[in-house]
Amino acid sequence: MRTIAIDAMGGEHAPAAIVEAVWQAKAKLPQTKFVLFGQVEQIKACLPGPLDDQVELVQASEIIKDEDEPVKSIRRKKDSSLVRAANYVKAGKADALLSLGNTGALLASGIFIIGRLKGVKRPALMPTLPATSERGSFHIIDVGANAEAKPEYLLQWAELAALYAQTIEHIDQPKVGLLNNGAESDKGDPLHQTAYQLLSASQLNFTGNIEANELLLGKNDIVVSDGFSGNVALKSVEGGTTILMKQIKSALVNSGLKTKIGAAMIKPALVKVLHKFSTARHGGAVLLGVAAPVVKTHGRSDAKPIYYTLLQLDQMLSEQLIQKFEAKLSQTEK
Amino acid sequence: MRTIAIDAMGGEHAPAAIVEAVWQAKAKLPQTKFVLFGQVEQIKACLPGPLDDQVELVQASEIIKDEDEPVKSIRRKKDSSLVRAANYVKAGKADALLSLGNTGALLASGIFIIGRLKGVKRPALMPTLPATSERGSFHIIDVGANAEAKPEYLLQWAELAALYAQTIEHIDQPKVGLLNNGAESDKGDPLHQTAYQLLSASQLNFTGNIEANELLLGKNDIVVSDGFSGNVALKSVEGGTTILMKQIKSALVNSGLKTKIGAAMIKPALVKVLHKFSTARHGGAVLLGVAAPVVKTHGRSDAKPIYYTLLQLDQMLSEQLIQKFEAKLSQTEK
Repeated sequence: MRTIAIDAMGGEHAPAAIVEAVWQAKAKLPQTKFVLFGQVEQIKACLPGPLDDQVELVQASEIIKDEDEPVKSIRRKKDSSLVRAANYVKAGKADALLSLGNTGALLASGIFIIGRLKGVKRPALMPTLPATSERGSFHIIDVGANAEAKPEYLLQWAELAALYAQTIEHIDQPKVGLLNNGAESDKGDPLHQTAYQLLSASQLNFTGNIEANELLLGKNDIVVSDGFSGNVALKSVEGGTTILMKQIKSALVNSGLKTKIGAAMIKPALVKVLHKFSTARHGGAVLLGVAAPVVKTHGRSDAKPIYYTLLQLDQMLSEQLIQKFEAKLSQTEK
Repeated sequence: MRTIAIDAMGGEHAPAAIVEAVWQAKAKLPQTKFVLFGQVEQIKACLPGPLDDQVELVQASEIIKDEDEPVKSIRRKKDSSLVRAANYVKAGKADALLSLGNTGALLASGIFIIGRLKGVKRPALMPTLPATSERGSFHIIDVGANAEAKPEYLLQWAELAALYAQTIEHIDQPKVGLLNNGAESDKGDPLHQTAYQLLSASQLNFTGNIEANELLLGKNDIVVSDGFSGNVALKSVEGGTTILMKQIKSALVNSGLKTKIGAAMIKPALVKVLHKFSTARHGGAVLLGVAAPVVKTHGRSDAKPIYYTLLQLDQMLSEQLIQKFEAKLSQTEK
């Protein structure tokens, strides 16, 4: 039986939305067990049905908050839902870890408690973003697990991400682009110029530089980036589109009757676009390079995106992603 | 009389849109002269009226194209409209430079032909972005004149940008934020950590780190950034919002009759939002740190944004921005 450890206290709708998602997932995945860590009384109050052997609750008295300093908090809050869940994975009592809470603390738990895979230079965070392409999404790695990067990190992130896309999404030769400040091969600072050379010389299906204005067109399956500018790109795209959508909604609601009637008439079409641009369908952000599947889902998520993330984690286990990473890494070392 | 040198051959609608904008500007600015560089016969064919002493045409046989390598092209294409215009400024025959063409070539013309101001470490490019704040816009510097940066460059860019905002926009104490990968003061790589310290210790109205998802809220008058991630932020925001708007438009047009009727009813409200998010009203991107006002306007611009950019350039001259920069820089050197 596969077992997923879940920090049940992270995110805005914890633990209710998480419990709801687990109930949906356990019906879909009868071979998978879900261990929820947190304040058991609070979790119990949300249960939609009786506990069975697919669900286990483990008491944890502390919660790591969003404003807590990541590394300090995982050292100090030993009885937090996140640290308890991570230690379960480390001890081999669970196979994967999910949290909706403090991203930095989850990364630190993955890197310092669960530990990196042998041969991995730096673990990196890879979310899935929506795209207007036929496939409808792409991955970007790293978006902030590392403030500093070296060219060889970027190459390894691209290799791990490509193996993820092959294994989980069954894309034969994933297209890999390098986020840079121009399209030409000599663009960027020395970090990106050298990364370009390494990617060109690799076995990857490298398509060259991509500029940030083209990200959402989804021309690549994977965009590799240093963690600092990847973080800026992710937040700019999310912030920009969210702010624009809010402005449109507010303009439609706060206008005259004619606009309101018109808004009601276009609502289905608008919702369809929003759905396309929603990250919810695409699961969570994966911390690649650690010894177990570790995924962060957005703190604002309701049950549905959490449910999709549980399916994603289960697939990472059933497809033996970590074992494939290990095989790949041991090849590279030779 | 103030004189603005204009590369009349850059941009998608050259020279017609540029000539149209000049005609609007010369009516508004009777004390200003406009010198248009390019293929005189082509420019003449667009003139809406007879030439007068406010407009001069100067023949230039070559054009620097968007795909040309910037530094090489300004060295080789001596008779291009851009290089001729920049040399006019260098020779003191014009006071400011505008182009809609190859951004890199314009930056190279500003830096290598017109030259940097004494005491400037690295010139930097500063566009104006729309914001949902009351003021409706903010500046970001640098967005790509430099692929590499040092903390002291960021400090100087913030100082120059603050003086621009004081002089041109009459903002008493412009708020300055640092684009970083987190809000806390210790965030970022060493470059951004040190820049944070320098900005904190300066006389500037420094508000701390800002994350990219909050850019368009316009909490600051100026956001300072290394040129690489500033470039990523600018393109991500522009690309993300443009792609989202296209998706919405296409959804409204390609749906059933009911949606089409609704779309017609909401159009005025939607156009208002788009106008707010349009960069056109805000003039062009300024290359700060060179010996004359040098501005780039978007290559896709029609006459209106070019007209606003001409007003912006004229104001930079009438408010003696460059002289104020020189005074500030000589103070700093002491």
